Amino acid sequence: MAEKENRGDSSQEDDQIVNPWEVSAKDGGKIDYDKLIDRFGCQRLDESFVCRVERLTSRPPHVFLRRGVFFAHRDFNEILDLYERGEKFYLYTGRGPSSEALHLGHLIPFMFTKYLQDAFRVPLVIQLTDDEKCMWKNLSVEESQRLARENAKDIIACGFDITRTFIFSDFDFVGGAFYKNMVRVGKCVTFNKVVGIFGFTSEDHIGKISFPPVQAVPSFPSSFPHLFAGNENLRCLIPCAIDQDPYFRMTRDVAPRIGYHKPALIESSFFPALQGETGKMSASDPNSAIYVTDSAKDIKNKVNKYAFSGGQDSIENHRKYGANLEVDIPIKYLGFFLEDDAELEHIRTEYGAGRMLTGEVKKRLIEVLTELVERHRKARAAVTDEMVDAFMTVRPLPQMFD
Amino acid sequence: MAEKENRGDSSQEDDQIVNPWEVSAKDGGKIDYDKLIDRFGCQRLDESFVCRVERLTSRPPHVFLRRGVFFAHRDFNEILDLYERGEKFYLYTGRGPSSEALHLGHLIPFMFTKYLQDAFRVPLVIQLTDDEKCMWKNLSVEESQRLARENAKDIIACGFDITRTFIFSDFDFVGGAFYKNMVRVGKCVTFNKVVGIFGFTSEDHIGKISFPPVQAVPSFPSSFPHLFAGNENLRCLIPCAIDQDPYFRMTRDVAPRIGYHKPALIESSFFPALQGETGKMSASDPNSAIYVTDSAKDIKNKVNKYAFSGGQDSIENHRKYGANLEVDIPIKYLGFFLEDDAELEHIRTEYGAGRMLTGEVKKRLIEVLTELVERHRKARAAVTDEMVDAFMTVRPLPQMFD
Repeated sequence: MAEKENRGDSSQEDDQIVNPWEVSAKDGGKIDYDKLIDRFGCQRLDESFVCRVERLTSRPPHVFLRRGVFFAHRDFNEILDLYERGEKFYLYTGRGPSSEALHLGHLIPFMFTKYLQDAFRVPLVIQLTDDEKCMWKNLSVEESQRLARENAKDIIACGFDITRTFIFSDFDFVGGAFYKNMVRVGKCVTFNKVVGIFGFTSEDHIGKISFPPVQAVPSFPSSFPHLFAGNENLRCLIPCAIDQDPYFRMTRDVAPRIGYHKPALIESSFFPALQGETGKMSASDPNSAIYVTDSAKDIKNKVNKYAFSGGQDSIENHRKYGANLEVDIPIKYLGFFLEDDAELEHIRTEYGAGRMLTGEVKKRLIEVLTELVERHRKARAAVTDEMVDAFMTVRPLPQMFD
Repeated sequence: MAEKENRGDSSQEDDQIVNPWEVSAKDGGKIDYDKLIDRFGCQRLDESFVCRVERLTSRPPHVFLRRGVFFAHRDFNEILDLYERGEKFYLYTGRGPSSEALHLGHLIPFMFTKYLQDAFRVPLVIQLTDDEKCMWKNLSVEESQRLARENAKDIIACGFDITRTFIFSDFDFVGGAFYKNMVRVGKCVTFNKVVGIFGFTSEDHIGKISFPPVQAVPSFPSSFPHLFAGNENLRCLIPCAIDQDPYFRMTRDVAPRIGYHKPALIESSFFPALQGETGKMSASDPNSAIYVTDSAKDIKNKVNKYAFSGGQDSIENHRKYGANLEVDIPIKYLGFFLEDDAELEHIRTEYGAGRMLTGEVKKRLIEVLTELVERHRKARAAVTDEMVDAFMTVRPLPQMFD
């Protein structure tokens, strides 16, 4: 069957660039997610999915699901169908460990993945692509590995179930069945193809060109014979930000040619920078993001100083016209992290009508973020090296819904 | 330092093509090895090396050395210098396991490597590139692995010292320190560079483009921490046919940039096909080569029927003009495998003068080959699966000259 998902190939010619290393819209505008869905060939995750997930899991859908942070999918319906039939699947997500401290945008896929793991009671593999970062960021192997381990602590702090979760770094884990699948995938993808999908050029080094199969193969349970022994047909669901879609378009294109199931995906929009919603946050500008290592004072300062406000330029105008919620970052951030729907709606209404001022909204955001970051800090401090070792130990993961 | 060895890059534009997958001279002529040395930027292995090896090892130099089968090198002098100072090195060679049965041309690097191992009493790693053959010959992973194990038996039958020899297949062994070095190498080589060195095109799949680092990194002892623990500065000497030079030109170019020693090389010419000396033997034509599985009858038939003769077209003319030894395959083959210098010289003289007929020379060659193949067959039959496992077990190799 010809694959709809391969339409995204000429991603460099469009008026917005979304790939694993660059997210930008022409003229510094906002990313047009409808266009992205159309170009990538994925599906919109509509309201019916939210209801179905709620019904199947008998628990309230995650804020990120009901507020449309995760807004697109591929074959998520098939995953829900098989779950409904009492069948199994596993989750796969990951991170490129390029920096010491994670920011809030980095936490989003992990917070959501934890919810999915709890709600569906399924095994999870988390890939730390230290090899990728060693190549793209020109870090040493050792530094990439150190960052992978540091990042593993932040990931574990998100509360994953150790009995169902395997975390691995590529430098530790590539080999054996995993490497065999890398070769199987590599055989099916030409250089021209990765040029189209990822925008590589012939001046890129072959380390980069070799990498896409590394991120592809955790989509196949046979890459983890010691985790999923005896169930090599297990389906895979990948929660990720939509900039990772190119990897999995490629993976889905290859899968049937090598006798494997296509992974399903559930994809998020980007968490906006403090300065405004024009793409992802930038690791090179510490003031563009709230980090999980920021102090309460840092958070207060960053939100007050840098969070782009949709409020008007004078109190008089604000009372008169109200805030522009479409561009207001405090409101966007509250949409991610303020769980109380009624309170969020109240703030939106009051702020939009000009009865609430930017300072008040920012104050509430500072409280919410400070509590979130403080909770994360405590959880991370409790993660010992032994726990990291335990999560990273190759062992069978329970696949039954017990 | 700019590397002389990188001159060979435009190998496709020359009037002869020599790379790991193709060996051919324009107009079906003979390979011009002097030109090859010049273009690749390696050195001729002259008489002084033969004498020095004899002196240093206190044993007669191998037939392949004293008769110029191994005719080129890179830094072999440095290896001899350090050996003379009482320092250590290790040998690295390999094979792409693409066929069930090896032919005599395949045995040559292994016969020579065994001699080197015995003469210098050094450790040896042998790489079976089952991943390469899976990609280039489009074999399944499983079939490539099966062939690797079958080929390992033929290699072991060449008589390697099990205490000093580690044989590995890429599908089994890639990972860990080996994979880290693959990434380090991959970072230093652009796609354009591998296009120049190997003749890849953008229609080639990324599996192929990913492969050169796999063959490069056994040149670095740090790829084998469990074999060479505590001696990560061990120098490496690679005996191979000169068609493998592109891999090691690339490796030598990269090595200093990642803090490693360049491997040294000692390189052979190609073993000619029965039909004449215009390149390597062809696996697709079983009558172009003598296989180690050929029966005495097969050998007799192939030599008599297919071995290109430099003899004249009639006995009268032969007696008058003598044989043309330059094109005569039986004489070439005897040059590889008839160890007795005096007898070889006698045959050359008599045959060249027309006093000996092609039939007599072929008869002697049939005796020599039958004995060689019979000896190999017996040795291979004695190779058990347990022995293969033992050679393929990761363990420390002794590095002392004991």
